[in-house]
Order: sequence, then structure tokens, then C-alpha cells
Amino acid sequence: MLKLFEYNWQVRDDWFTWCETVPEEELLVKRIGGVGSILYTLFHIVEVEYSWICGLQGKPEPTEPPFESYANLSKVRDLSRRYHGEVESFVTSWTDEMEDWKLTETDSNGETVSFKYGEIIRHVIAHEIHHIGQLSVWSREMGWKPVTANLIDRELFE
Amino acid sequence: MLKLFEYNWQVRDDWFTWCETVPEEELLVKRIGGVGSILYTLFHIVEVEYSWICGLQGKPEPTEPPFESYANLSKVRDLSRRYHGEVESFVTSWTDEMEDWKLTETDSNGETVSFKYGEIIRHVIAHEIHHIGQLSVWSREMGWKPVTANLIDRELFE
Repeated sequence: MLKLFEYNWQVRDDWFTWCETVPEEELLVKRIGGVGSILYTLFHIVEVEYSWICGLQGKPEPTEPPFESYANLSKVRDLSRRYHGEVESFVTSWTDEMEDWKLTETDSNGETVSFKYGEIIRHVIAHEIHHIGQLSVWSREMGWKPVTANLIDRELFE
Repeated sequence: MLKLFEYNWQVRDDWFTWCETVPEEELLVKRIGGVGSILYTLFHIVEVEYSWICGLQGKPEPTEPPFESYANLSKVRDLSRRYHGEVESFVTSWTDEMEDWKLTETDSNGETVSFKYGEIIRHVIAHEIHHIGQLSVWSREMGWKPVTANLIDRELFE
């Protein structure tokens, strides 16, 4: 599991670096699909990861700050760095026995829902990869070469 | 690892079902980004998964059939089903000790490259999720609602 998180963090950092090469207004253009813009996608990835990891730690879900107050590259990148230590320390301390632990929440209809930790941790992994796939299409539509999504050749297994 | 494959297989099937609701010529329209069209993306996902699984089983890499001979929905779906038994039986028999086994190949420059099995199996997982993210953008651009990418609420952990 950890390796897939490390992959996501590396790819996310590559996208932050990629963002430096693009005029900032392009990062905020409302695009079709996903959550709308490149920067909002990165913000959303960071928020969703942190929010679930808080839940898994038994901490109250943080209130998502409005994107408007984070709508520039350095702020989103800082937010990602700020949350990272806590996320990383949770993920690196993951053990197999946690797979079946349960997180119980109230959903948007007020109903009680319960998920296994193993389900949530994989949801977080897939969530980021999926949204990054969307960035890759938008990037090509802008005429920019996207960050590679390859997991091999990233020296994650050395 | 298996659960992420099961997620991919379920999402892939959902996309095949989604494809039934779209005029077939739309599935073949050349789009910007990724490998180009919706159907070619699904074909590519199926081929790449099978090809790596063959490699991990020590079997010679299959020759990728030309997409032209698979350029309709039922053929790509049949191909996916045809390969699935072998892929599933490999993935369900995965054990932790296989993580560090090595696959050695000759790359496109004629150089010898070596990957851990753990690296390849995660590459295959991330590869499919990434390409599915691309389909979701194209789908919205067409005005169609995409298949949900959520991993939770798929009853994968019951």
C-alpha cells in the first residue's frame, strides 16, 4: 500500500513542478470534467487524502477550506506539504490487522455508514490516480506534455 | 493488491456497459490525450494488463494484435473476458514473497532492464486507473455522465 502512496506523492510533486511551467491563469481555467480546473484538482486531491486520513486516525474531519483562499500554486503546494507529515506517518505505520477495522460516519443523507479501513485506504489511492488521469487529458488539450504516469522507472523499489 | 484489481475489473465492466449507451462511432472518435479514443483506451488497458501478467508468469510476451481488428465494442469486451481467467488466477495466487522476484526484459533500446514483481503489479493497477480518469473527461466533453470512479460503495469488502 505504501508504495502506491509514494507513487502518488511523487506524481503529485511532478505535477506541482509542471504547474510552474504553465501560466497561472491556465491552472485556474474551468475545464470540462473532473472537479473543473487543474489547481482545484490538486487542491481536491490534497484535501480528500488528508480528510480520510484524519478519519482513520479517529480525528474529527477537518473543515475543507474554501478553494478561493487557496487558488494559487504556492498555496496548494504548501497545503500539500503541511498535511504530508501526518499522512505519511499514518501510512507508514499501516499494518495488515488494520484492514478490517471499521470507520463509521454519517453520510450526506444523515444515515450511518461504515467502511473497512482497507476499503478507505484503497479509495484514497485510486482517487488520486483517477484525478491525475484527468489532468493528463487537459494538459494535452492545452498543448502541454503531461507528467508521466508510469509507476515503473521511478526508483520507488530500490 | 487483489482488491485494487477487483476494483479495476468492476470499473472496466461498468465502462463496457456505459459504452453500450453511446453510438459506436463516438467510441472510435480520435480524442486529445491518452491513447486517443475511448475504445482504444479500453483495448490498451486489456492488452497492457495481460502482457505484464504473461511476463510475470514467465511466458513470452504476446504479440499485441492490431487495434484495427478489435475496433468494436464486443470484440474488445470479448478480448477482456478471454484474458481475464488467466489474469485473475495469477493475481489471486499472489503472495508477499513474490514482491522481490525479478523480471528481466530487453527495452526498446536493446538494453536489459530489470523490475521487481511488486513494482510491475502496482504499475498495472495504476495504469488502468489513470486511463480510466482520461475516459471520464472525454465522457463529460461528450455530454455523457461517466462511470463513477469511487472505490467505496462497490461492495468489494463485504
